[in-house]
Amino acid sequence: MDRLDRLARCSEEDGALTRLFLTAAHEEAGALVMSWMREAGMTADFDAAGNVVGRYEAAVPGRPTLLLGSHLDSVRDAGRYDGAFGVVAAIACVAALHDAGTRLPFAIEVLAFGDEEGVRFQSTLVGSRAVAGTLDPAVLESRDAEGITMAAALGRFGLDPAALPAVARRPEAVIAYVEPHIEQGPVLEAEGLPVGVVDAIAGASRYAVTLTGQGGHAGTVPMTMRRDALAAAAEAVLAIEGRCRAEDGVVGTVGTLEVVSGAANVIPGAVRFSIDLRSRDDGLRRRTAEAVLAELADICARRDIRVAVTPTHDADATVCDARLTARLEQAIAAHGLTPRRLTSGAGHDAMAMAALTPVAMLFLRCRGGVSHHPDEAITAEDAEMGVRVLLAFLHDFAEDWRAEDGGAPAPAREKLGS
Amino acid sequence: MDRLDRLARCSEEDGALTRLFLTAAHEEAGALVMSWMREAGMTADFDAAGNVVGRYEAAVPGRPTLLLGSHLDSVRDAGRYDGAFGVVAAIACVAALHDAGTRLPFAIEVLAFGDEEGVRFQSTLVGSRAVAGTLDPAVLESRDAEGITMAAALGRFGLDPAALPAVARRPEAVIAYVEPHIEQGPVLEAEGLPVGVVDAIAGASRYAVTLTGQGGHAGTVPMTMRRDALAAAAEAVLAIEGRCRAEDGVVGTVGTLEVVSGAANVIPGAVRFSIDLRSRDDGLRRRTAEAVLAELADICARRDIRVAVTPTHDADATVCDARLTARLEQAIAAHGLTPRRLTSGAGHDAMAMAALTPVAMLFLRCRGGVSHHPDEAITAEDAEMGVRVLLAFLHDFAEDWRAEDGGAPAPAREKLGS
Repeated sequence: MDRLDRLARCSEEDGALTRLFLTAAHEEAGALVMSWMREAGMTADFDAAGNVVGRYEAAVPGRPTLLLGSHLDSVRDAGRYDGAFGVVAAIACVAALHDAGTRLPFAIEVLAFGDEEGVRFQSTLVGSRAVAGTLDPAVLESRDAEGITMAAALGRFGLDPAALPAVARRPEAVIAYVEPHIEQGPVLEAEGLPVGVVDAIAGASRYAVTLTGQGGHAGTVPMTMRRDALAAAAEAVLAIEGRCRAEDGVVGTVGTLEVVSGAANVIPGAVRFSIDLRSRDDGLRRRTAEAVLAELADICARRDIRVAVTPTHDADATVCDARLTARLEQAIAAHGLTPRRLTSGAGHDAMAMAALTPVAMLFLRCRGGVSHHPDEAITAEDAEMGVRVLLAFLHDFAEDWRAEDGGAPAPAREKLGS
Repeated sequence: MDRLDRLARCSEEDGALTRLFLTAAHEEAGALVMSWMREAGMTADFDAAGNVVGRYEAAVPGRPTLLLGSHLDSVRDAGRYDGAFGVVAAIACVAALHDAGTRLPFAIEVLAFGDEEGVRFQSTLVGSRAVAGTLDPAVLESRDAEGITMAAALGRFGLDPAALPAVARRPEAVIAYVEPHIEQGPVLEAEGLPVGVVDAIAGASRYAVTLTGQGGHAGTVPMTMRRDALAAAAEAVLAIEGRCRAEDGVVGTVGTLEVVSGAANVIPGAVRFSIDLRSRDDGLRRRTAEAVLAELADICARRDIRVAVTPTHDADATVCDARLTARLEQAIAAHGLTPRRLTSGAGHDAMAMAALTPVAMLFLRCRGGVSHHPDEAITAEDAEMGVRVLLAFLHDFAEDWRAEDGGAPAPAREKLGS
């Protein structure tokens, strides 16, 4: 908890936590993290993508690597646990191994990704995509609010943008990626559980909708002659809510809604709103999207409203590795806790890492499900439990690995079924 | 139509019509109107409230006065017929009397009110309230966007704010106020009628509503754990629409709705919206308001949403004088048209004038019900019909007056029943 407080002081703002990619605050946080890594017996440095990488060598050098970690960047006016908890918890596990003089049959690397939120350059998961080898080089030309390109910012940070492709790992050198993270939702708190296991990261569909009816004077147009765009949007909001309530395993949100040129005495002529649908089941998400858009079309046909729908985002779900997930559950159960499985509705570095290697995630209870806000909170007891579970997982997994691997080098992909 | 086009060029903006109270555009429009009044045999001047007053003397000087008119000011980027049509139509009627050498048994005054919309000083109906004697003197201290008080603006316009109380008419010197105006609604157009008669100007209740639920991540909070302020607002929008559709004679509008700090991936934690209810029946409007607010409370109780409602406006209906209205209908029928009665949902100078004297209104069809917009449109044929009907009304009413009055001076109030 002290380390998380110290990281929270690495900020671009006084009295608030804002730590964007490749800023002085990022550099300061990276230096702090590297000092803790070295203290835990690791070598540590920034890679060319601005990720901090700490390596704890295997019992026998040259063996594949288990990756742990999360991200160091934040949103503006952020909480101190989103991302940072995963980094600090992973280092704590390695420190425990180091203190006990234990080395595992595989190397451990702790990755503190430089960009997950994407706030500075409007491009998420830059650090983990670079490691997974899926980063589009065009992202180097994206610019921050001051017009600085990401390539220039990497250069100013002392990194070589040309070396970026070399950050990508070979799949056969990597065993898996395991990410501890706060839940950012209220489920564990509601069920009285300090930790949970992620079975999947939900896929998401987003749409921008514009409804166009007919404006008019609020006093002069009879109810029967109205083509009120807001009333149509209200029906749509309730239709989306109703369908997602009726289907288990999908959530739907209208998060923005704007009456164009709205005034108290004017019938809304046009309304814009967003639709966000998420599910761990891509088929269910697509069927829900189709049904919701069909309902929207019906509502608008009935009300003589013109509707324009633009898909703005579409990402499939990331399924966590079944065996890693089962091992995390085993570690939780070994601490006398119910191993609750959750689907992550929020995106994580594990989504990008899944292109490289099997992934798993351990969720930590957070207060009120609040995140991306200074009110984000966890307890020291929960944090400790998270580290204990992760450490137990590492030991169990090392047992598996020893038993199956017999010390022979083998591609990680074949070790794990999903 | 040419006069209306010429008035439209008296604007503060090139290529758009914006004519606010006590501006150079107002002065220019006033001068134009006065020149037409004088051409029609009237004396004409600005009164101390910035209204243009043109007087066409009675056959026998000193008799009471019938007031005709509407307003000269506009909203920003306005249409050219709202207000101006009433002024120009009234002058056209007097011009017809003057051309025919006819004087009526009462004087006619055409009033071109300087402020109806209230855009400059955020205070509506200043001109007609001054004439009716109901203007709150505090309004003189209200300031425009540049900090100029209304008193100072009157002074710069060459008027004496201290003379404002003298603008008020004595009720016994006035017979009635009759206002021609574009409908600003779609009813006459839908029914294929060039003109209609107003039976009442609707009363209005307005509320500002804030709903507070619980924000949260659109991906991480299960549907069953949500307290979505927008979903509650959507139910309220439909409840208001449903109730006003079910009741004849009341209209309800949610014209503004804002998700506070809305984002596509955030469950709405707070929503603000407006409610506007109007009816010619004050009892029906109050019962509807009570029912709507009770439904809102039910919706919010069921959804565990906090609700705050602030009344922002409450005005009773203005009932038009029954006899004047019947005479207008008679004049319409005499032109072979169905005399359609409408309730005005919009406010008019007649509302303020009703405190002084019986009022009536003649509505003119406008295209698509559009007003307060450059697309506002009427036809020359309709405008001519409006003037013909108003002129016929003046002749009919003069007959009544001659028959009943017998030439004796009598208080106007007793002449008309409502």
